[in-house]
Amino acid sequence: MYLALDRHSNERLTLQIKRLLADRIHSGLLAEGEQLPTVRALARDLRVSPVTVMEGYAALEAAGLILRHRGRGIFVSRRESAPTVRAPANDPLAWQQEVADYVPRAMAGAIQRYELPTTVLPMHSATISADLLPIQDLLSDLRHAVLNDPSLLGRYSPVSGDARLREAMAAYLNSTGARVTSSEVLITQGAQQGIDLVARTFVGPGDAVAVESPTYPPAIDVLKARGARVVPVRTDGEGLCVEALEEIPDLRLVYLIPTFHNPTGTVMSQRRLRDLLTLARERRALILEDDPWRETTLDASPPPPPLQSLDTDGHVIYVKSVSKIVGVGIRLGAVAARGRLMRRLAAAKAISDGGAALLTQLAVLPFLGSPRMMRHLRRLPGALRERRDAVLQALAVHAPRGVTWTRPAGGLSIWLTLPPGLHSDRLQARAEAGGLAVTSGTGFFAGEPETGHLRVCFGAAPPEDLSRGVALLCELIGSMTTP
Amino acid sequence: MYLALDRHSNERLTLQIKRLLADRIHSGLLAEGEQLPTVRALARDLRVSPVTVMEGYAALEAAGLILRHRGRGIFVSRRESAPTVRAPANDPLAWQQEVADYVPRAMAGAIQRYELPTTVLPMHSATISADLLPIQDLLSDLRHAVLNDPSLLGRYSPVSGDARLREAMAAYLNSTGARVTSSEVLITQGAQQGIDLVARTFVGPGDAVAVESPTYPPAIDVLKARGARVVPVRTDGEGLCVEALEEIPDLRLVYLIPTFHNPTGTVMSQRRLRDLLTLARERRALILEDDPWRETTLDASPPPPPLQSLDTDGHVIYVKSVSKIVGVGIRLGAVAARGRLMRRLAAAKAISDGGAALLTQLAVLPFLGSPRMMRHLRRLPGALRERRDAVLQALAVHAPRGVTWTRPAGGLSIWLTLPPGLHSDRLQARAEAGGLAVTSGTGFFAGEPETGHLRVCFGAAPPEDLSRGVALLCELIGSMTTP
Repeated sequence: MYLALDRHSNERLTLQIKRLLADRIHSGLLAEGEQLPTVRALARDLRVSPVTVMEGYAALEAAGLILRHRGRGIFVSRRESAPTVRAPANDPLAWQQEVADYVPRAMAGAIQRYELPTTVLPMHSATISADLLPIQDLLSDLRHAVLNDPSLLGRYSPVSGDARLREAMAAYLNSTGARVTSSEVLITQGAQQGIDLVARTFVGPGDAVAVESPTYPPAIDVLKARGARVVPVRTDGEGLCVEALEEIPDLRLVYLIPTFHNPTGTVMSQRRLRDLLTLARERRALILEDDPWRETTLDASPPPPPLQSLDTDGHVIYVKSVSKIVGVGIRLGAVAARGRLMRRLAAAKAISDGGAALLTQLAVLPFLGSPRMMRHLRRLPGALRERRDAVLQALAVHAPRGVTWTRPAGGLSIWLTLPPGLHSDRLQARAEAGGLAVTSGTGFFAGEPETGHLRVCFGAAPPEDLSRGVALLCELIGSMTTP
Repeated sequence: MYLALDRHSNERLTLQIKRLLADRIHSGLLAEGEQLPTVRALARDLRVSPVTVMEGYAALEAAGLILRHRGRGIFVSRRESAPTVRAPANDPLAWQQEVADYVPRAMAGAIQRYELPTTVLPMHSATISADLLPIQDLLSDLRHAVLNDPSLLGRYSPVSGDARLREAMAAYLNSTGARVTSSEVLITQGAQQGIDLVARTFVGPGDAVAVESPTYPPAIDVLKARGARVVPVRTDGEGLCVEALEEIPDLRLVYLIPTFHNPTGTVMSQRRLRDLLTLARERRALILEDDPWRETTLDASPPPPPLQSLDTDGHVIYVKSVSKIVGVGIRLGAVAARGRLMRRLAAAKAISDGGAALLTQLAVLPFLGSPRMMRHLRRLPGALRERRDAVLQALAVHAPRGVTWTRPAGGLSIWLTLPPGLHSDRLQARAEAGGLAVTSGTGFFAGEPETGHLRVCFGAAPPEDLSRGVALLCELIGSMTTP
């Protein structure tokens, strides 16, 4: 087994081993019931002393994450309502346990939840339900695109994207407040791929990357898979606390969601945005601005324009999801960067998948920035506001003492803080067993996971279902905290 | 600038610097006319002595790849018919030159060629032209899929792919000779993403990976971007010389295309396939089998079944492109793996892009493995054979003395060896200026690039165009070699 130990870190190796294995267990990458390497084998793989590994295992056992059976081995412990996974004896594949991998965490548990049965109320996923999406428009555009030029199915897209779509994307981004030209835009397979392209291009082992705490889990996953030193930075009602970045030596990249933050909904203040840009200039650092929800302003005052629009010397790389607001069944996003950075990102895109499918690109081309899309975007916030308010109202009525929550001005999620002592993983499992999907907050932390938060999303279900879901959730919280 | 120097290697640091920079220049990642860091700056970034960098630059200058202007700086030199790229003075983005990146090569030059004007004869791209593809079938399936369930546009796919498509994919792969179950299959954005997923999951800095020499350039790009030690292994008429692998210490992965190899067309012998599997077992190594062209058997005898089908203990990971044979405008492929490896690959897929677009998956679902697809696959080889034979015949008539070529039994490419002294990059540039796109062989080598080969593809144009193209190419070769 490979764990990216940092021998120059102040953190003791024992604690690093504990943290890295805990990451894999929390994210489901090491399944419950799975056998871990022996102390001797792991010590050999990591080139540390057996005592160091033994202490790491002891810390994991104390945290309830592993179990040691004398004579049988070391296993990931079982949690509530989880499937049993154990390799049979004489397994011809057992040798694979020794195959090193370089993916330290991946929210595998959360991800499998896209396969939840449709009877489960989906308050875990920051998506917009089909009834609010312009599906008929997209569908007819798709038909026209393919009928007009069937040969598109036989052609590769240019790596950076179809030229016309890059034009349309640049025009659309500019209409939302960004400042880009079409040659500064690269089409991606959703925003997730944009984050991944930036990480694989500009982040390497040991590089210091700052992220908000909490933040979007897949971004943490990507950065940790690059072997980066991911430093969680405190946030408050104005967003990322920029002055805290000054304490991070050799800062290479700051990843943040300044507008309608996921999961907290916070909008970063203009003052902080400017401070961040100044700091990036001084430190010669890159900023990765993720901006998925700008179009979902739920209250009267619109958010400040993207940080990207203030940047004159190419410090900000901007990642935008389009499919999140027009339909996630089409995976489409863009990454925008100035200067030399774009050619390098295009090279990374070539390596990743050789370019987006032309079919998907041309399906969205006529819709992107069209009056029909603008009409959709004018209608969307009203419907989402109704859903948000249904959740807020139900929380106000039903929430047990000790529960607090955010009131997001945009985006699709509300961040709950639970009463002391209630573990969010346990709550998630119990809710799911009761037909309600919500997301435990543990995955949103780049460092030691906090266990007292829950993300509740309101985009994927109608108001009456959301009210019912919150009532159920609150009842559960009450029953799990009452002595 | 970041270069992945290996301080434990036998190769001198000076030569490593030369090789790594040459890789970037050959692949277009460092553009012609672009300024390189000063000796002092590069020495500082790489933590080597200025003398080491100076010697590396001298070797690059001797190879004609860079130019040193006294007092102005060091620049990538210009080549024939290439655009001028130079940063203007007082460029506010100039600081970006210092931003390290981790993408050492990416065939950026070759990739930009997907944007070639349609008047250029496309003998550079191993694709099948639209007239031989089942476009109308795919189109009507796509319409039905979306009309039957418009809500698919509002749903995320499970990370590993839609469950029904994984079933259909497993059934299809089994029909071609592989042995997989649906839970061993993960849907990818083309085969390229499959290769990338395996590399990012199982290959890390310094890991030894063996590849055939020559081999598919994007695979080299991906492996080098992971910081792997990519070891080219000699090949002959039976494919990869397995005994040469025995000399590679700590072998972690072997990447190969045993069936209708790209670019040589070779089919690996059954004996060698078995030897390779035995070696993988003994060395506890993984094998990555890339099998894009199995369906394009051009001669009477079919190739041996995939190596994957012989594997009983999970050493072989199998990567399959589907879009290459049904239409590259849809990017769709699969990676198949047994045992614990699959969960790790799914985690990597989650990080990469969160899952394939449901739209693309459901568009292909009714077609995959259907009688209509089987009819398409029965017709395809005849048409491709005609194209291959047109090229072979034209070569027999027109090729100047000193040119030799392969006769592929499947696949879409022919590998030419040029007369001594003719540089394939120069030939590629001259051919392109004359309206003919072919691919210089330099990118197909993981080590020092050989400059005497050219790949000619025959899938993307009708026979009469191919004959004309070969005649033109041969004329060019003649004119460039005549004293």
